[in-house]
Amino acid sequence: MNAELLTIGDELLIGQIVNTNSVWMAQQLNMAGISVIHMSSVSDKKQAIISALDDASKRADVVLITGGLGPTKDDITKTTLCEYFNTYLVEDHDVLNDVTEFFSKRNKGVSVINRKQAEVPFGCKVIRNKNGTAPGIWMKKNHVHFISMPGVPYEMKGMMLEDIIPKFKKMYELPFIIHKTILTQGIGESILCELISDWEDGLAEKNIGLAYLPSPGLVRLRLSSKGFDESELKNKIDLEVEKLTPLIGKFIYGQENYGEKQPKLEDILGKLLLDKKLKLGLAESCTGGYISHLITSVSGSSSYFNGCVVPYHNEFKHSLLNVDQSIFTTSGAVSKDCVTAMVKQTLIKFNANVAIAVSGIAGPNGGTSEKPVGTTWIGVAFKEKVITKQFVFGDDRLRNIETAAITAMNMLRKLILNIED
Amino acid sequence: MNAELLTIGDELLIGQIVNTNSVWMAQQLNMAGISVIHMSSVSDKKQAIISALDDASKRADVVLITGGLGPTKDDITKTTLCEYFNTYLVEDHDVLNDVTEFFSKRNKGVSVINRKQAEVPFGCKVIRNKNGTAPGIWMKKNHVHFISMPGVPYEMKGMMLEDIIPKFKKMYELPFIIHKTILTQGIGESILCELISDWEDGLAEKNIGLAYLPSPGLVRLRLSSKGFDESELKNKIDLEVEKLTPLIGKFIYGQENYGEKQPKLEDILGKLLLDKKLKLGLAESCTGGYISHLITSVSGSSSYFNGCVVPYHNEFKHSLLNVDQSIFTTSGAVSKDCVTAMVKQTLIKFNANVAIAVSGIAGPNGGTSEKPVGTTWIGVAFKEKVITKQFVFGDDRLRNIETAAITAMNMLRKLILNIED
Repeated sequence: MNAELLTIGDELLIGQIVNTNSVWMAQQLNMAGISVIHMSSVSDKKQAIISALDDASKRADVVLITGGLGPTKDDITKTTLCEYFNTYLVEDHDVLNDVTEFFSKRNKGVSVINRKQAEVPFGCKVIRNKNGTAPGIWMKKNHVHFISMPGVPYEMKGMMLEDIIPKFKKMYELPFIIHKTILTQGIGESILCELISDWEDGLAEKNIGLAYLPSPGLVRLRLSSKGFDESELKNKIDLEVEKLTPLIGKFIYGQENYGEKQPKLEDILGKLLLDKKLKLGLAESCTGGYISHLITSVSGSSSYFNGCVVPYHNEFKHSLLNVDQSIFTTSGAVSKDCVTAMVKQTLIKFNANVAIAVSGIAGPNGGTSEKPVGTTWIGVAFKEKVITKQFVFGDDRLRNIETAAITAMNMLRKLILNIED
Repeated sequence: MNAELLTIGDELLIGQIVNTNSVWMAQQLNMAGISVIHMSSVSDKKQAIISALDDASKRADVVLITGGLGPTKDDITKTTLCEYFNTYLVEDHDVLNDVTEFFSKRNKGVSVINRKQAEVPFGCKVIRNKNGTAPGIWMKKNHVHFISMPGVPYEMKGMMLEDIIPKFKKMYELPFIIHKTILTQGIGESILCELISDWEDGLAEKNIGLAYLPSPGLVRLRLSSKGFDESELKNKIDLEVEKLTPLIGKFIYGQENYGEKQPKLEDILGKLLLDKKLKLGLAESCTGGYISHLITSVSGSSSYFNGCVVPYHNEFKHSLLNVDQSIFTTSGAVSKDCVTAMVKQTLIKFNANVAIAVSGIAGPNGGTSEKPVGTTWIGVAFKEKVITKQFVFGDDRLRNIETAAITAMNMLRKLILNIED
């Protein structure tokens, strides 16, 4: 069963709002075994809506429409649906009751404009709105379902979860669509692709899809499959993950388990620190507090995070972390010597048993021929053991900060788990 | 001139990523006087892409395509474009040079797979990629422009701003779509709306649109107008901004000037510190380094930022910032006394003349009936002058962190500029 999402509203086309409704709907439909094959956004213009409905009806079994159902003049979805289905608006008794009750709960009467909310296309099935006043509208034409919902997220979500998805589950025998995402760090998309090329070639005949999803410092690999036997699908994907692990095991830092939220590296590191009862201290120069922000964005991080210093100038690397002044003149602040001194002192300063220190040139200025922009030294410590590494990231300041943060957190994770590079 | 945006990638259709590229592109095109009339997302399947290209060509003058240009097997945009335009791939000399240089800068050779990035459809115009390896592809069919770009946001953005939009501006006489955004902090959307209600009512007849754009801690007000006389449009909008200022002046911390990048609060504060030759130190407890991250995300911040400490437990508030232990037992760490001590010591520790200290309960746990989740004390210091304030934000951890950071930076800005609350 294929679905198409159609969002109506000028605010999307001028980039004023992000289409989070479609993201949520796609997730829910997918989990219910309904594939989303197309998403469109069009303006509040009759002709644009009609031709989008027409195009969608050629591709999909169900067209889910959001937006343009309000009572004001710029909301034309309802009259446009009437034109497309060659029908007219009638007042629905149940909806009028809902609207009246909605306003009386708020000690208000129903205005002329709000009463129009009770009008629906003659011949449609009404979807009651428990969270607002505009009803959903369900129509059918040549075996294609057209369902129109309000654009207000929690009104739409209520209708989807309580009415629409359960009805489709009853009407059709829907397949399961299963995804598993493998999280990798420290390897670029193209090298990863070469390493797993043979394995990847074998996926198609097993009806497993693979997608590479890169972001700064990370590549996520998503395996997908569709079928009617959920446990068979899971077994099939798990088997492939088992074959994949020996190929790129040292780059894998985690995976998304079926139906769970995809963990972030800071979640995974946090859980490891918690499990091993370790306490973390940070010293960040070029990352400027970003690692500290990631770590503390995790709820409960105070159980394993002791603190951070951001000594943005050499004098504070000296005053806060006792880095010997001679290092700045001999090796410079972006050096193995400097991050080694920083990470060791961070353990002491924060009474910690694990620590990260970062010093680099985030850019876009400050690079030299010897140490170009992007040059970054990272040091990690686990009790007595210290590992340092030099990287040359890119030219973009924010990307360098993000990549350095991800890389540093994974270096610490690997040191704790004794995973060789 | 009408544009259509086509995003290619299964990850959109399963709701794995939010389509922020389209939002950004719509904003930029709009500002350049190009109207976006349709947005679509389709899967990485040849037939879906071809029919989307075909549909788009019937509606728009320019079709902007993102995604599916990577070197891996799931990226099929390039070969699909060849089929649609009835052409074939050839290696482009300039792109191969770019790719080679990209990898040699990172001390790497060009692998077989990466060399494929240099292949482009024969007959296309190549758009060089300064931020990555996949080139952009510009083709034309029956007066419709088709432009294919990588889906990686900063690669796409570089091409749009430096190449594509400037070229369209040269080729066509485009109307001006003028926006000016007024940045406010410390006032909610609904109260703001009431304060400026009469002023807002007068905008429509002047053909000026107004949008409220809220984000944690901030509300931005965007005024827009469209026409062929740029200076007339600007005068018209400037006049309205002049009328607006007396109504909400103390909440305004900045504005976007025509054609400039919308400044962030950290940019505005940074410029103020630079101009006044002030040096900043930070002490962050509940914000966990996020203010430090915002400050250091600004290029050149090392000129005015000295450093930060994140003492995530009381013992480090004492050891790093000399906060008297008795404060923790009498007033607690989330108190006026504590942030006062923190901010004063931060000035000394970082040899600074301005400082911020934050201590609060980010949540979702740790709240009490007396100090519920969201309770946050902020202290700011400008030389001898210290101001502290208590806030109770909300229940959401990340939103609390973001709102506290924005609020704290604006408190410091107002203290330096002697703006009363």
